[in-house]
Amino acid sequence: MAATPGRLSSVYSDLQKHRVHVPLPLPSVFSSSFDVVDGPNSSAAGNPDEIAKLFPNVFGQPSASLVPCSGSSKIKADQSLKIGVVLSGGQAPGGHNVISGIFDYLQSRTKGSTLYGFKGGPAGVMKCKYVELTSDFVHPYRNQGGFDMICSGRDKIETPEQFKQAQETVTKLGLDGLVIIGGDDSNTNACLLAENFRGKNLKTRVIGCPKTIDGDLKCKEVPTSFGFDTACKIYAEMIGNVMVDARSTGKYYHFIRLMGRAASHITLECALQTRPNVTFIGEEVYAKKQTLKNVTDYITDIVCKRAKLGLNYGVVLIPEGLIDFIPEVQQLIAELNEILASGAVDEGGEWKKKLKDQSRQLFELLPQAIKDQLLLERDPHGNVQVSKIETEKMLIQMVETELEKRRQAGTYAAQFRGQSHFYGYEGRCGLPTNFDSNYCYALGYGAAALLHAGKTGLISSVGNLGAPVSEWTVGGTALTSLMDVERRHGKFKPVIKKAMVELDGAPFKKFASMREDWALKNKYISPGPIQFSGPTADRTNYTLMLELGVQA
Amino acid sequence: MAATPGRLSSVYSDLQKHRVHVPLPLPSVFSSSFDVVDGPNSSAAGNPDEIAKLFPNVFGQPSASLVPCSGSSKIKADQSLKIGVVLSGGQAPGGHNVISGIFDYLQSRTKGSTLYGFKGGPAGVMKCKYVELTSDFVHPYRNQGGFDMICSGRDKIETPEQFKQAQETVTKLGLDGLVIIGGDDSNTNACLLAENFRGKNLKTRVIGCPKTIDGDLKCKEVPTSFGFDTACKIYAEMIGNVMVDARSTGKYYHFIRLMGRAASHITLECALQTRPNVTFIGEEVYAKKQTLKNVTDYITDIVCKRAKLGLNYGVVLIPEGLIDFIPEVQQLIAELNEILASGAVDEGGEWKKKLKDQSRQLFELLPQAIKDQLLLERDPHGNVQVSKIETEKMLIQMVETELEKRRQAGTYAAQFRGQSHFYGYEGRCGLPTNFDSNYCYALGYGAAALLHAGKTGLISSVGNLGAPVSEWTVGGTALTSLMDVERRHGKFKPVIKKAMVELDGAPFKKFASMREDWALKNKYISPGPIQFSGPTADRTNYTLMLELGVQA
Repeated sequence: MAATPGRLSSVYSDLQKHRVHVPLPLPSVFSSSFDVVDGPNSSAAGNPDEIAKLFPNVFGQPSASLVPCSGSSKIKADQSLKIGVVLSGGQAPGGHNVISGIFDYLQSRTKGSTLYGFKGGPAGVMKCKYVELTSDFVHPYRNQGGFDMICSGRDKIETPEQFKQAQETVTKLGLDGLVIIGGDDSNTNACLLAENFRGKNLKTRVIGCPKTIDGDLKCKEVPTSFGFDTACKIYAEMIGNVMVDARSTGKYYHFIRLMGRAASHITLECALQTRPNVTFIGEEVYAKKQTLKNVTDYITDIVCKRAKLGLNYGVVLIPEGLIDFIPEVQQLIAELNEILASGAVDEGGEWKKKLKDQSRQLFELLPQAIKDQLLLERDPHGNVQVSKIETEKMLIQMVETELEKRRQAGTYAAQFRGQSHFYGYEGRCGLPTNFDSNYCYALGYGAAALLHAGKTGLISSVGNLGAPVSEWTVGGTALTSLMDVERRHGKFKPVIKKAMVELDGAPFKKFASMREDWALKNKYISPGPIQFSGPTADRTNYTLMLELGVQA
Repeated sequence: MAATPGRLSSVYSDLQKHRVHVPLPLPSVFSSSFDVVDGPNSSAAGNPDEIAKLFPNVFGQPSASLVPCSGSSKIKADQSLKIGVVLSGGQAPGGHNVISGIFDYLQSRTKGSTLYGFKGGPAGVMKCKYVELTSDFVHPYRNQGGFDMICSGRDKIETPEQFKQAQETVTKLGLDGLVIIGGDDSNTNACLLAENFRGKNLKTRVIGCPKTIDGDLKCKEVPTSFGFDTACKIYAEMIGNVMVDARSTGKYYHFIRLMGRAASHITLECALQTRPNVTFIGEEVYAKKQTLKNVTDYITDIVCKRAKLGLNYGVVLIPEGLIDFIPEVQQLIAELNEILASGAVDEGGEWKKKLKDQSRQLFELLPQAIKDQLLLERDPHGNVQVSKIETEKMLIQMVETELEKRRQAGTYAAQFRGQSHFYGYEGRCGLPTNFDSNYCYALGYGAAALLHAGKTGLISSVGNLGAPVSEWTVGGTALTSLMDVERRHGKFKPVIKKAMVELDGAPFKKFASMREDWALKNKYISPGPIQFSGPTADRTNYTLMLELGVQA
C-alpha cells in the first residue's frame, strides 16, 4: 500500500485506506485535448415563456458536449482559474469524488488554479467561509463516503440580501466559477445564481451537479443522480439478509421502510434487486387513488394466500413517503391541521365531529399509537408531523387487526408476527460503489471543463452510462431546460420537477410484471455486501440499466 | 463461472453464485491420514461431583486432538457411516458450511456414507423429519448465509418422552452419529443425548458445534462461536456509515441498539471496530451496580462536554440486554409483575403505592411511552415484556429530559436531536465472512472426524485461529468440562454457563483504555462492507485476536 497521510492511518479502516488508492478511470475525451461544442438552443420542461422571463440572461442556452479535437483546442490551456465548490443538502455517497474530479481537472489542465471549498453548504458561500483545497487536503477523501471534507447545509440563497452576500463572496475571492453539488432545489438555486451573476456582469460562472440518493433528479441528458446506486445497494444488502433470515426462521413478516419521501425510486430499485413479497410504489398508490384500507387489504390478502401455502413469513417494502401518496390520508391530515390550529382536542372526542365522514372513518381505523402521534406530535407551526409516523409499524398493526377479523370469519387460521425496520441514514454515507466513484469523478471533471470553457447555467451531464467508463459522454445541459414554474403566493417560482417513478417506464413495468410471482413464491435474492472487486463490482443498478435499455 | 445447478441461477445474486464456488481451505491435519489422541481426563466448569452424577457415562472424558499419523491410522478408512445433523436455535452465518464440512469429510474419508439433515431443528429429530443430503442438495449452500438448507428450531429434547422419540429416530435410521449445531443450551442438550444414547447402549454418538452470533459460547478450547465474526462486521458496517453521516451532518446523536441479550460481546466488538462516543457494556453496568440515572447522566455529561467543543452529534452503542443488567430495573420489573398479577392498575395511579420507594421513583423517571409499554405489553403469563422495550428510544427521551434540566440551570445551551436504530436480523443471515466460512467448514470436518473415531459427548474444537487455516488445530472438548449446575425447582440442572464479557479480559481492557478518547474526540472508524477479497478479506475480529493475544 502506498504511503498515506497521517489522517488516514489513525481514523481510516483498512478498506477505507485501500479505497483511497484505487485509481479513477476517466472518459476517453479527457485523454487528450478537447473542444466544447454547442447543440441547438434549449427550451424549458414547461411554461417556457415564464422561464424565459425569470431567466432572461441564461434561458435557451444550448447543451454543451465535450468532443476530442484534432487540432488545437479553443480552450486556453495556460489559463489559471479560481473555482469554488459547495455541497448542498443531504449526504450522498460520491460527493467527495466530484470535488476530487474538479481538483484533478484544474491541476492537470489549468496550472496555477485554486479551488475553494465552501464550508457547511450554501451558508458558507453567503458568509464567505471556505477552505483552500490542496492536494494533501483532498487526497484522503478520494472514494470515501460522507460529505465531511467541507460538510453540507440546507440553506438557500434566495432573498436579494442573500444574493448580494453571494456576490460579495465570489467577487472578493475573484471566482471564475462555482460548482454547486445538490438536488433539484440546489440546482434551481445554481441556475438562479448563474442568472444573477450574469445579470450583474460578474465573471463567475455556475455549474450544477446532480446529487440525491432518492434518484429523483434525472432526465434524458442526466440519466441518474449520484448516490442512488450506493444507497440502494446498501439497503438491498440489508433487505437480502433479512429475507434469508425470514425464510430460515419461517415465522416473521418484516416490514421495511426505506428512504425516499417524494419519489419511490429507492423502493423500486431495492425491489428489483431483492424480489420481496410485497412492495408499495407511492406513485402507483396515488395514481390508483388507493386508500389505507386498500393498502392494508393488499398485504393481508397476500399474507392469507401465503398462509394457505404454509408460508407464514414474508418481506414488505414501504417507501418513506407512502402515506403522503394516499389521497384520503392527505385529506385527513389537512383537516386535522385545521382542527388543531383552531383549538383544543377534547378528551371525550367531541372534536371528531368536525372531521368529514370519510376522514372520521379513516381516523377510527388507525391504531391507537398512530392516533396519538397524529394528535400529539406537532411541528413548530402546530401541524401534524407526517415524517414522524412510523408507517411500517402502523401497517403491521392494521394488518393484525384485519387478520383478526378474518380469523373470526374463519378465513385465516395461522399466526402473524411483524418485525419493523427503517433503513435511512445507513445508506447516505457508505463508501461509494465503483459506479458512484467513477460517475462522480467524471461529473466533477466535466464540471471543471465546462467552467474552463466559460459555460454557465448548465448541469454537468455524463452519459452513455451503460458502456465502459472510457466511452462515457461528457457535457452540460441547460438548467433552464429542466425547469417548469409553480405558482406560490401569487408568483411564479422556477422549479426542477422531481422525476417520479413513471408507471409506464421500464423499471416499474419490469417490477409489475414479476410482483405477483414474487408475492406467493419465494424468489428472494440476497445481493450481499457491495464488493469493490470481483464479479459484481461493476454492475450498476437495475433502474439505470432498464431506463437505458441495457440488458439488466 | 462454473456451471451451477438450476436453483442458483434463478434465486442467487451474482455474489452468492460466486461465493458458492470459492474453495474452502482445510487445516493441514486433513491433508493426509491422522489419528485422534486423547488428553488427560477432564472435570467440569463447576460442581464436578454433581455433573458426574448427571452424566455417569460421559463425565470426565478426555479432550481429543487430531494429529497426523506417520504409519497407518487407527481410524478405519473403509467404514461407511450414517450421520445425522441438526441446526438448533437462532440463525448464524456459517451453519451451512458446518454441514458442508461434515458432508465433504464423509464423502472423502468414509465411502458409502449417508448424511441426513433433520428438518426444523430438534423437533425434526423427535418427529424423524429429515432429508438425505446429497452432493446436489448441499452444493448450492456452500458459503451461503441463513439456515434454510434444513432450517432450525428452538425445541428442546428434555422430557423422557422426547428422549424416547429421539432414540426411536436414531435407531430407525441406524445412525452412527448425530451432530448438533447450536448455542449453550443446544450443546447441553447434545451432551444429555450423548449420555442418554450411551446409557441405552445405542451406537449413536453425539458431537456438538459452537454456534451463536452473540459470542457467548466460548472457552479456552473453543475460542469463538461461529457467526459472531460476520454479524459484528455487518453491524459495524452500518454503524460506520451512520458515523460518517453523523460527522457530515453534524446535528444528530444516533442511539444504536445491537443484538445480544445475555452478553455484550457484540456491542464490545462493534465498539472496537468503530470507536463510538458512548458504549455501554451490560456486564460493567451490572458490576458497578449502575442505575438508569447513572446511565443517562453518563451520556448527558458527554453530550454537554461535546457541545462545549462545538460537537452536537455523536454515536451511542447500546446492547439489547442493557436494562436487564441494571439492578434497580430488574427490581422494578419484578415488583410490576407482582402487582400486575394481583389485579388491576387503576387510572388514578393508586396502584403505584404498592411499589417500593426506589422502584416508584424509578418508574416516575421513565418517559410516558416506556411507562405505557411496561403496563400494557405483557406476555402470555402476564409478565412485563422487557424485550419489547426500545431502550434506544427510552434513553433518547431520558437524555432530552436531563438536558432540559441543565438548560434551565444554564449549563447546556445547544440542541440535541436523537435518532434511534436497532440492528438485529440484518446480521444473523448475512453471507459468512471468509473467517466464518473457513472456521465452520473446519468445525464440520472435525465433527465428522470425531464421529468417525467413535467419539461422543464432545464439542468440535478448532484452535490456533490466529494462524493461517493450514495451521489450525482440530479436536474435540468434553462437553461436561464446560458444565456447571444450576438449581431449578429443587433439582440440579446442568448448564453451559454463558461466557460473559470479562471486565479484566483483553477486549474490554483495550476498549476501556480508549473510550475516554473516543468520547470527546472524533475517532470514528468506518469499516465498510465485508469484502471477500482484497486487503481486509482475512482479518478476523478484535475480540478473538485480543483474546488470543494476536496483534489487533
